[in-house]
Amino acid sequence: MTELAHLGLYGLGTMGSALALNILDNGFALHVANRQEAVTTAFAEEAGPLAEKLTTHKDLAAMAKDMPAPRAIILMIPAGKPVEDTIIALCDMLEPGDTIIDAGNSDFHDTRRRTEFVEAKGLTFIGMGVSGGEEGARHGPSIMVGGTPQAWTGIRPVIMAIAAKFENEPCADHLGPDGAGHFVKTVHNGIEYADMQMIAETYGMMRYGQGLAPAEIGKRFEEWDSGALTAYLMEITGKVLQATDTQTGVPAVDVILDRAGQKGTGRWTLIEALRLGQSASAIEAAVASRSWSSEKETRVAGEEILGGSRGSVDLQDADYKDALLAARIIAYAQGFRLLAAASEEYNWNLDFARIAEIWRAGCIIRSALLDDISAAFRGDMPHGQLIFAPFFAERLKETLPALRRVVSAAALGGHPIPALSSALSFVDTFGMARGTTDLIQAQRDFFGMHGFERIGGDAGQHGPWWE
Amino acid sequence: MTELAHLGLYGLGTMGSALALNILDNGFALHVANRQEAVTTAFAEEAGPLAEKLTTHKDLAAMAKDMPAPRAIILMIPAGKPVEDTIIALCDMLEPGDTIIDAGNSDFHDTRRRTEFVEAKGLTFIGMGVSGGEEGARHGPSIMVGGTPQAWTGIRPVIMAIAAKFENEPCADHLGPDGAGHFVKTVHNGIEYADMQMIAETYGMMRYGQGLAPAEIGKRFEEWDSGALTAYLMEITGKVLQATDTQTGVPAVDVILDRAGQKGTGRWTLIEALRLGQSASAIEAAVASRSWSSEKETRVAGEEILGGSRGSVDLQDADYKDALLAARIIAYAQGFRLLAAASEEYNWNLDFARIAEIWRAGCIIRSALLDDISAAFRGDMPHGQLIFAPFFAERLKETLPALRRVVSAAALGGHPIPALSSALSFVDTFGMARGTTDLIQAQRDFFGMHGFERIGGDAGQHGPWWE
Repeated sequence: MTELAHLGLYGLGTMGSALALNILDNGFALHVANRQEAVTTAFAEEAGPLAEKLTTHKDLAAMAKDMPAPRAIILMIPAGKPVEDTIIALCDMLEPGDTIIDAGNSDFHDTRRRTEFVEAKGLTFIGMGVSGGEEGARHGPSIMVGGTPQAWTGIRPVIMAIAAKFENEPCADHLGPDGAGHFVKTVHNGIEYADMQMIAETYGMMRYGQGLAPAEIGKRFEEWDSGALTAYLMEITGKVLQATDTQTGVPAVDVILDRAGQKGTGRWTLIEALRLGQSASAIEAAVASRSWSSEKETRVAGEEILGGSRGSVDLQDADYKDALLAARIIAYAQGFRLLAAASEEYNWNLDFARIAEIWRAGCIIRSALLDDISAAFRGDMPHGQLIFAPFFAERLKETLPALRRVVSAAALGGHPIPALSSALSFVDTFGMARGTTDLIQAQRDFFGMHGFERIGGDAGQHGPWWE
Repeated sequence: MTELAHLGLYGLGTMGSALALNILDNGFALHVANRQEAVTTAFAEEAGPLAEKLTTHKDLAAMAKDMPAPRAIILMIPAGKPVEDTIIALCDMLEPGDTIIDAGNSDFHDTRRRTEFVEAKGLTFIGMGVSGGEEGARHGPSIMVGGTPQAWTGIRPVIMAIAAKFENEPCADHLGPDGAGHFVKTVHNGIEYADMQMIAETYGMMRYGQGLAPAEIGKRFEEWDSGALTAYLMEITGKVLQATDTQTGVPAVDVILDRAGQKGTGRWTLIEALRLGQSASAIEAAVASRSWSSEKETRVAGEEILGGSRGSVDLQDADYKDALLAARIIAYAQGFRLLAAASEEYNWNLDFARIAEIWRAGCIIRSALLDDISAAFRGDMPHGQLIFAPFFAERLKETLPALRRVVSAAALGGHPIPALSSALSFVDTFGMARGTTDLIQAQRDFFGMHGFERIGGDAGQHGPWWE
């Protein structure tokens, strides 16, 4: 049985301070340090009565030196070079039995490499995905842990205590070795991208195809945030669409430039998907949409040149609701397909039901569906496909007709819906025994003599065009 | 003025032999060698009267030693480790002034690295994309050259002679330094994927939505292979759909398993696009479709579970034709956007008009549109976007209504059309000054305090939800 570790946290920025207060709030002793000592001092002052079990140190080296062993030091600093340099430095400050925990948004390939590096020095390493923003970090994030079981045992009580709770169960767990935690967090973000994009596409049709005001659309989202569609992203969409800009008195969304930022996790998800031979098309569409949004001037010119104007759309609220539900099921399904592919490739043995459970609270994609997803993974799931699990197959049969109507109306009316239409194409592809790739194989054999497999026959065959 | 190089070719597989015969056929002297000497002997015998200017060598080292300087040695061997090992070995066999030419399908990042490695040894390096399969290699491929101008001067007459001709102009050129040639070839393949997929989607709707027989659809493609739609891929689609399987007497396409292969260039294109902050959605859809096609058993189960059946489709031939034209324009436009992004990132200074020209013959994506694309890049092109060039903006205005009808009918009828719908979403996104990313920015600010830019105002602003 591994001893419980003494806990340190390095990096008292927004996320680091919030996580530190959360730890203290839960009654644990905590050592802290920051690159600038003044930040540490300020943090201790602001912590007020929570500072009782807090020990501050002037820098990382002092903290490592003065903390009693075994130590577990959480790094909450920017991904990339800062975390890389700090891990290297920390290795020389710690001793066997100690643990380094990277709680930032690191690329899981880096986490795998660092695990090897750190463990070669007799220390243990944990890559920990933390979701939920500042609010989550302070009052309960969803926490995805990757590392050895021993390392996990040493910090488990703290992590379970500070995590978000869903019906009193902590939304945190040890998911697998090395990069497993960071990869699961990456896929979480990919699903987040897709869901946000599908909501935005729906908003666009209601706004520009039906002429509804943002506040009115916001009210619908607020209403729809119930039953199967319940989701944090529905809730906040309802709120932001009903908000009024205080400077101008117009809807808040109308003063915002339609140019999105992205931090890279969406792209990472896709690059890794491609490396694994997978395609997560709803996430691809969402990432594409954000990157195209950055070309604002091009789009302004495009409207003039192509004479684009959105046509009116004649749909019912129920159509949008069902379409969103179908599309969200598909986005989750694509995310879990990526997790399955990575789990196999990297021997992580991921527990998909458990992952769905720890996403039920604290993180951005928390939604009512996750309870059903978890149940689906514990039940009968033909071919490991979420969309084939009886519960979801039924939901899809009920809701796909609406998704078809929405995609059709958008196509005819000139409303861009890359994510909703990608979701539909995905489920239509997998709902059909025979696709049209036979023609593609014929073309490839014709121009490149690539060969094909005959149905019920041999591979490496050629068509009559080669006889 | 660089001296003309003496030419050697190493690797007498299908592509290498074809290219060697092409070189000899054009009256040039050629040295050849192969890993196995017997292959070289057999090649010399089969070359017959063409062997007059052929010199065979027992292996690569002997060829390098016996050839007069300056030497230019074309490697036509598998990409990856074989080409890597051969380049390293060859560096020690050659001397300053000599050139190594990698004519395989190498990843352009490898080509950039190898250029540096080889040139540090005083040699020159060329990465050469060769398109057109065996037939092209033998009678005229499209050739995309990356390397220094000096290296190019030494081999230019041979390359221009062996290349495909379009109205007597060689479809070959020096496109830029280091990896430029291989990257242009990669994007060529990406466009090829997209066009094949869009044709297959159209076939699927005609076949399963209108109940037409393959031969009947093949006849239409044969007819449509004229005017603006003229393309090699249209021509061969007409042929393969009209072909009959000699074993069974049924349409050839019907004996082929609908599970596609891919060699990686599609994925490379997409990974590089993502690294460059770009998304080529029609290529993404085509790659996704091929990778999903490999899950045949899953799709068979899916048809039963989801009860998928394709609905009938009521469209005119003109709808499919116009939709294909619009979608093909968009696929090319996305490919050229990738070329532009890479050209900027790697300082290649690519000549897009010239690239379109050298794709007009010899390669798989040769089509009537390329002449217009070349003209468009030489003319007025707002924001560097092909879809905004007057000629193409007009074509899109004419044809987009048909693409809308096709996407709408497919969505309602349950026909998977990932590429056609992605193409439509792309052009709808760029035909619209104001998208729906304002909502996404609002959501991001709400849950992560990411900040947004106010229209006509400052960046880093926050919404009223933070007040």
